[in-house]
Amino acid sequence: MEITNKQMRVTIEGQSESATKINLRAGRFSMIIDEPAPMGGTDEGPTPVQVLLMSLAGCLSITGHAVAQQRGLKLNDMHIKIEGAMNPCAFMGISFDERAGFQEINVTIDANFDGASQEEQEAWLDETEKRCPVTDNIKDSTRIKLTPKY
Amino acid sequence: MEITNKQMRVTIEGQSESATKINLRAGRFSMIIDEPAPMGGTDEGPTPVQVLLMSLAGCLSITGHAVAQQRGLKLNDMHIKIEGAMNPCAFMGISFDERAGFQEINVTIDANFDGASQEEQEAWLDETEKRCPVTDNIKDSTRIKLTPKY
Repeated sequence: MEITNKQMRVTIEGQSESATKINLRAGRFSMIIDEPAPMGGTDEGPTPVQVLLMSLAGCLSITGHAVAQQRGLKLNDMHIKIEGAMNPCAFMGISFDERAGFQEINVTIDANFDGASQEEQEAWLDETEKRCPVTDNIKDSTRIKLTPKY
Repeated sequence: MEITNKQMRVTIEGQSESATKINLRAGRFSMIIDEPAPMGGTDEGPTPVQVLLMSLAGCLSITGHAVAQQRGLKLNDMHIKIEGAMNPCAFMGISFDERAGFQEINVTIDANFDGASQEEQEAWLDETEKRCPVTDNIKDSTRIKLTPKY
């Protein structure tokens, strides 16, 4: 990660080890993404769509704590549960009647404040949603440019 | 993960441990998301935006291998590098002139085939992009419903 002139650049790399397992690296951190056995995988890590939802939970948590601090609210901790439903037919190449990804993402946020009114909590949540980078990239369309190396 | 009647339901949970650190769980897998010290964090895990890009790399890899197999192409492995640039001002609450998330996501795919022509590889990449669930959720807008618990 590099911050210059109000631009933060983020880079990650991945190398597939099998049809379902990929070894990923972001700076000094590594992770494995895989599929469970019923999907033909070796179940050595979470699936890509689980990791997508984890990135959203992490971003809402960090943004939520930052917004609370700036608003002078005492936020002790947040518990976040995220659920999504998708039709795997497009991924499998069976049909394209429904989109490939989640049709909708449902987030339940249990934020534990000391002494914040419901109005303060509503304003906090609105601002958190607006400032959360991962929420923005999922909620509004984001250009993905694929460049193959031949 | 539960597949019923062409609906696959995916659930994850997270619990914040500090303003920047969150412990996440997806099935039997856990991970930590955090921020580096210059962002006020404890650098115990990748950042949310790094994890977003890792989910995309994982999904492109798994989808790419599935598409190659169905097309009868011998794909040995894929190396994927993803870069994104964002202006952190919206996240920080300083200004909203630019969106909170990545302005664009650049993916370089180095797919190592045995004996596939460039035309076959181009058709493979088009289909991979179309069938990749995480690509779909980022590229096209996806509704995120936030439900607070008061």
